[in-house]
Amino acid sequence: MKKPKTATYEADPGEVSKVLLLFSGGLDTTILMKWIQDMYKTDVITLTLDLGQPGIDLKEVKQKALKLGALKAYVIDAKKEFAEHYISKAIKANALYQGQYPLSTAIGRPLICKYAAEIAEKEGCDAIAHGSTGKGNDQVRLDAGIITLNPKLKVIAPVRDYDLTRDVEIDFAKKHNIPIAHHKMSQYSTDENIWGRSIECGILEDPSKEPPKDIYLMSIPPEFAPDKPETITLEFEKGIPIALDNMKMELNKLIEKLNLIAGKHGIGMVDMVEDRIVGLKSREIYECPAAITILTAHKDLEKFTCTIHQNSLKPVMDQKWSEMAYYGLWYDPLMGSLNAFIDKANEKVTGMVKVKLFKGTATTIGRSSPYGLYDHKLASYTKGQTFNQAASTGFIELWSLQTKMANQIKEG
Amino acid sequence: MKKPKTATYEADPGEVSKVLLLFSGGLDTTILMKWIQDMYKTDVITLTLDLGQPGIDLKEVKQKALKLGALKAYVIDAKKEFAEHYISKAIKANALYQGQYPLSTAIGRPLICKYAAEIAEKEGCDAIAHGSTGKGNDQVRLDAGIITLNPKLKVIAPVRDYDLTRDVEIDFAKKHNIPIAHHKMSQYSTDENIWGRSIECGILEDPSKEPPKDIYLMSIPPEFAPDKPETITLEFEKGIPIALDNMKMELNKLIEKLNLIAGKHGIGMVDMVEDRIVGLKSREIYECPAAITILTAHKDLEKFTCTIHQNSLKPVMDQKWSEMAYYGLWYDPLMGSLNAFIDKANEKVTGMVKVKLFKGTATTIGRSSPYGLYDHKLASYTKGQTFNQAASTGFIELWSLQTKMANQIKEG
Amino acid sequence: MKKPKTATYEADPGEVSKVLLLFSGGLDTTILMKWIQDMYKTDVITLTLDLGQPGIDLKEVKQKALKLGALKAYVIDAKKEFAEHYISKAIKANALYQGQYPLSTAIGRPLICKYAAEIAEKEGCDAIAHGSTGKGNDQVRLDAGIITLNPKLKVIAPVRDYDLTRDVEIDFAKKHNIPIAHHKMSQYSTDENIWGRSIECGILEDPSKEPPKDIYLMSIPPEFAPDKPETITLEFEKGIPIALDNMKMELNKLIEKLNLIAGKHGIGMVDMVEDRIVGLKSREIYECPAAITILTAHKDLEKFTCTIHQNSLKPVMDQKWSEMAYYGLWYDPLMGSLNAFIDKANEKVTGMVKVKLFKGTATTIGRSSPYGLYDHKLASYTKGQTFNQAASTGFIELWSLQTKMANQIKEG
Amino acid sequence: MKKPKTATYEADPGEVSKVLLLFSGGLDTTILMKWIQDMYKTDVITLTLDLGQPGIDLKEVKQKALKLGALKAYVIDAKKEFAEHYISKAIKANALYQGQYPLSTAIGRPLICKYAAEIAEKEGCDAIAHGSTGKGNDQVRLDAGIITLNPKLKVIAPVRDYDLTRDVEIDFAKKHNIPIAHHKMSQYSTDENIWGRSIECGILEDPSKEPPKDIYLMSIPPEFAPDKPETITLEFEKGIPIALDNMKMELNKLIEKLNLIAGKHGIGMVDMVEDRIVGLKSREIYECPAAITILTAHKDLEKFTCTIHQNSLKPVMDQKWSEMAYYGLWYDPLMGSLNAFIDKANEKVTGMVKVKLFKGTATTIGRSSPYGLYDHKLASYTKGQTFNQAASTGFIELWSLQTKMANQIKEG
Repeated sequence: MKKPKTATYEADPGEVSKVLLLFSGGLDTTILMKWIQDMYKTDVITLTLDLGQPGIDLKEVKQKALKLGALKAYVIDAKKEFAEHYISKAIKANALYQGQYPLSTAIGRPLICKYAAEIAEKEGCDAIAHGSTGKGNDQVRLDAGIITLNPKLKVIAPVRDYDLTRDVEIDFAKKHNIPIAHHKMSQYSTDENIWGRSIECGILEDPSKEPPKDIYLMSIPPEFAPDKPETITLEFEKGIPIALDNMKMELNKLIEKLNLIAGKHGIGMVDMVEDRIVGLKSREIYECPAAITILTAHKDLEKFTCTIHQNSLKPVMDQKWSEMAYYGLWYDPLMGSLNAFIDKANEKVTGMVKVKLFKGTATTIGRSSPYGLYDHKLASYTKGQTFNQAASTGFIELWSLQTKMANQIKEG
Repeated sequence: MKKPKTATYEADPGEVSKVLLLFSGGLDTTILMKWIQDMYKTDVITLTLDLGQPGIDLKEVKQKALKLGALKAYVIDAKKEFAEHYISKAIKANALYQGQYPLSTAIGRPLICKYAAEIAEKEGCDAIAHGSTGKGNDQVRLDAGIITLNPKLKVIAPVRDYDLTRDVEIDFAKKHNIPIAHHKMSQYSTDENIWGRSIECGILEDPSKEPPKDIYLMSIPPEFAPDKPETITLEFEKGIPIALDNMKMELNKLIEKLNLIAGKHGIGMVDMVEDRIVGLKSREIYECPAAITILTAHKDLEKFTCTIHQNSLKPVMDQKWSEMAYYGLWYDPLMGSLNAFIDKANEKVTGMVKVKLFKGTATTIGRSSPYGLYDHKLASYTKGQTFNQAASTGFIELWSLQTKMANQIKEG
Repeated sequence: MKKPKTATYEADPGEVSKVLLLFSGGLDTTILMKWIQDMYKTDVITLTLDLGQPGIDLKEVKQKALKLGALKAYVIDAKKEFAEHYISKAIKANALYQGQYPLSTAIGRPLICKYAAEIAEKEGCDAIAHGSTGKGNDQVRLDAGIITLNPKLKVIAPVRDYDLTRDVEIDFAKKHNIPIAHHKMSQYSTDENIWGRSIECGILEDPSKEPPKDIYLMSIPPEFAPDKPETITLEFEKGIPIALDNMKMELNKLIEKLNLIAGKHGIGMVDMVEDRIVGLKSREIYECPAAITILTAHKDLEKFTCTIHQNSLKPVMDQKWSEMAYYGLWYDPLMGSLNAFIDKANEKVTGMVKVKLFKGTATTIGRSSPYGLYDHKLASYTKGQTFNQAASTGFIELWSLQTKMANQIKEG
Repeated sequence: MKKPKTATYEADPGEVSKVLLLFSGGLDTTILMKWIQDMYKTDVITLTLDLGQPGIDLKEVKQKALKLGALKAYVIDAKKEFAEHYISKAIKANALYQGQYPLSTAIGRPLICKYAAEIAEKEGCDAIAHGSTGKGNDQVRLDAGIITLNPKLKVIAPVRDYDLTRDVEIDFAKKHNIPIAHHKMSQYSTDENIWGRSIECGILEDPSKEPPKDIYLMSIPPEFAPDKPETITLEFEKGIPIALDNMKMELNKLIEKLNLIAGKHGIGMVDMVEDRIVGLKSREIYECPAAITILTAHKDLEKFTCTIHQNSLKPVMDQKWSEMAYYGLWYDPLMGSLNAFIDKANEKVTGMVKVKLFKGTATTIGRSSPYGLYDHKLASYTKGQTFNQAASTGFIELWSLQTKMANQIKEG
């Protein structure tokens, strides 16, 4: 039974005629496929975006959707677009929510919303359906993104709105002969794309316990990583990685390759308790080998090429960017201003960074740039005979003048 | 020859009658000891603070100072005070300048200034002398700290003001029969206390080159660290570590012990190009095993016990704290306000954190607290049946309302 | 008919047995008094807080409540407490939401919530009722405050939850013989206390039109204000006004007196379009003669006694304080940290400020303080012969070093 | 006698061969004209920028310079450029240093530096001379701007570097037969352009005393302003005023016209104690009729067209912009990022603002915009039947969830 309608964008059965379902091919959305037809008596079109989920077989997903009764099944490889227009912004923003989470899932959502709104328009769908629960962030990002891009669209989220628990789903599947045997009944809830993978639920919900080692897919636990460090070189142009070990490649290819290399060394595991948008704290595990490696290098090169004034304000802007992306406010005009600030700051973030990968850690061990403010062209300012030490005492006297005055009065 | 006087706090020979020299016992200040007597024709008193420099022998330093002609030689063990009133503030502020440097040297300076001003007052000294150059941060921190605490004091910094180069110093030593043979003529310039060690100059000045492995004293390079991880437990009370592996100990003892444990695992090496106060960038290497381990744990516990609103603003305040401490503005009244904010935020940062040390990385793998906002007492809010999923859509509708409106207008 | 329950803190009839109604004595809550008894079949106790609403007669309100069937009628003069523990914080925080609104209503709500939670506890009430609509800020501040202070309490907000429109209310009043004839059927919705008065709705909802002059009660429109300026003196101690024209008085008395003086000169009218918590913009008119006068003087004295570093960060903290107070998050721990920061910054904000009141404007024309960083005791630093002009060029060279380096590279 | 050289950019006599003097035509620079030829034995070229100083006669200034021996005398009308590329940025940034000063002089300096560097290059000058003292802000802005734009240039600032007091100047003038009789020997030091006028020194240095009324040139003291209010309409496009009372005009013309109108009503007088870059506080009086009027209108329209998220961050960015401009760091790359952020935020700041001018106060009394987020097109969201009140309680429950949890634990 549906909970009463609270938001205007919710659709009750009978109110919509054609539904676009965000279809992953997994158990939840497989059941939803039938469930929506059954409950809402509408046609269903599916949309599956390939953002680099490991092991996804696009053809199979498409066939499955059609077999389950989809009027049409859109399957779109959006990896390149995801890298170039979403991940690239996150790199330039050194994006780590609460200092740790590279926002892998979070920045995929607005892209999904964009395609969903476009296809709904094209196909005449009047509602978008998705499998998110009512306790997480993704419902916020999806609902907010969809109604922002097209306020006429309704949203159907049966797991949330009809409280579809796992047991209810399995009953429903049995009753409707939906084959679920081959689905791994994991205790974890996961999401993945080329920028990282998130793992939650199950025994991870106890934040005092170390996560088990078998939950990782992209990274090898440091203890089992190679005993020899590996040094890679990342080349950046205006803040974006353009080459790995001197091989130019498209950003999504570079990330995929780096996931393998850095994952092998156990880079990018994150264990954190984070503040969800809806007010809960939750314990989350992430593995993001390429993301952590690239962000480490980018931040280093950025500091190297930016002035002390930029380096002081940029982290504040970066934090705000991460919060807005996490909060599902990707399409707010503030993001436009933040991106404009950040793009400008990245104009000189061009150069080479050497990163050493070893047993779980990515460490910058060398950086160079034609725009480095510590650069050979400027050696004259940094070598003994040219830096003007005589200026220092004048500087210090004025630099500390008010602090001194304040202290005298305190004493006086 | 002295450069012309720029700041009012500089002393020319003849202007002062008794000098307090900040005396480390190293080559530079050994030479300065004689040099000041020679050039300024004044009595000299020395002050040596034990902040936990590895290998310092307080008795030896005292004898050396007296032998070199010091009227008196103050040697003070300030480790406990340093930990409890300076490092403790840095821990609560998650203090990392430009995201990397734990400010080990920077936060020692105000304590040195405090003792210097007090002893100068007591002994009737009218000037403080120190060995800093004119290109670094320490001159700013020392000069600013001293004249803030007592504006009547003058400062003598011969290395800066008379351009005493290494060669000039050696000539002077030979001429005055100062034994320098046993001093290691390192190419590096270092500074150390229990909160960490900094290494700069020499081949490190090329930021594109990896630092050599033999520069480290406190940390073993990860490649040579043990093959087995070690898990430690830190207990915090109001933001301050009070026990290590369930053994209560004073903060300075805890830090010293943790330096050994974490250092063995290669924790705490930092390679960065930082923005100095005087406008230069410089490449710095730090090793801070205990600092990095404690800060990792503290930040995790803080996020666990603070609300999303606190967690969003605290990093901004922490950054400001780090900048003020780095900039030599420790005694500015702003620091009082920042510390008040930070102390209040740390009132509930009480609990246990498990940290795994392995091959250069300290990772939090578990945390618990009676004040955790993810806590068993509150399970009712976080478990399925009690978190109110029905509230979510109402939340989302209002949360995204303006973003949606803005987007419609853009389109319209 | 009640809308379906969305939040867990909402009470349906039958779920609660004794209700505490926030009772203003106005039309809305007069009707609610009867309506709740009728619909929820519970006893009702009323609570009326005197925060300085002009023209409130406490005895009359009490009698009215009892006559309408209240089991008990609490009437509490909280003006002194409001001034000393709520307004005082707002003054120290220079609190102006979005730069204009002194938060008069907003900071009264947490005090009302505090009394409501206390009396509900004492009287065994299990729900609080109030007359707020579902579109405004006050529902957020009241609901959030109440459930924060006591999560076991339910909230009844009939105007929001049963969509009680003005017409429905009048019908109900007629049916139940509630005399409403003497209530002025204003087109405006207002709220007032000693810190100010808000006016909204009606023709004010067109933000392109000038508000009519007859809406003001506390301030005389500048055009009709006296032709002669009046200069007053405010004395502050640690950020709080303690004397007006050299007469010491309690803060609430001082504010009441200043409302008369400054109101006579047309001070404190605010016309703004503000962002409500729930995502709407609304056009609001405020009149706050004392608030604007005091804030003008306080900000001036604060800048006079604080260092440049404090003066740069304080406005950011002040803005955050205003947002938290406006957003109904008064009881969030972040407010504790903000108040700690702000209290510390106000420790030296002691002194005299002369303010000229004339035709709608309060202008600071003189300030003095024993802690002024522009003070006679420090004249030596600020007069020609003692400020060290020789230090300036050294300062400038280092101050602009990185900017210069960055520019050279741009060119090079 | 020259003070010893501290900064590398200072020139001693003999080190430079051709000097470009920033020449205002006033007493100081008239004397400097001769003094430089006398002391530095160089040719002198003069540069005078017309930024709208009231009463400047360009022809006369030019003749005077040539008569005093200038090799060439550049006189440039830069009012349009000043308005379109400097003031426009300040408007979009709502620029008020420390909340009060519109930065009139501060933002003129980088334009002067730009012309100075260009003409020095073209004419083969190797030094720029100016008349600033060593205690103020302008020396920082000029020196920093000049050496940033061309690090090869030297700077000569005789008033600072040779301590030229008023008496010394008068002696010098007499000795060299420089006619000074017709110069008003004001006790005040002033600077002016179309964005405002600053007045300092003399009796104004006592911050406890009201400034005398006869110091103002652009504004009539409110007491003497007309008894009838005047309402004007400003039309903005992307943050920039393009029409006054429906008459389109160039920005510099609009400002000049508005200075007359708003000045007549006593708008724009500022009395403040501000923190100078060099660490001093100083009491400054400004009069900026057009600036204050335009900024009042701009801020209102900006809030009207931007989302709550933008409205919360923009003031922080604006403050930073003002500080950077005030601090003489106009050419730092951070300004590029700030301007990019601010330009983006102003893209929708288009519309009409009605401002009432009366006795010293400019008040916005109406605003409208096709992009207003409070707009007729969106009325459906703001009127009773369409704003979804049912969403509010869901919103409130999640909005206050962590605050509530934190409070329970505090109690528990």
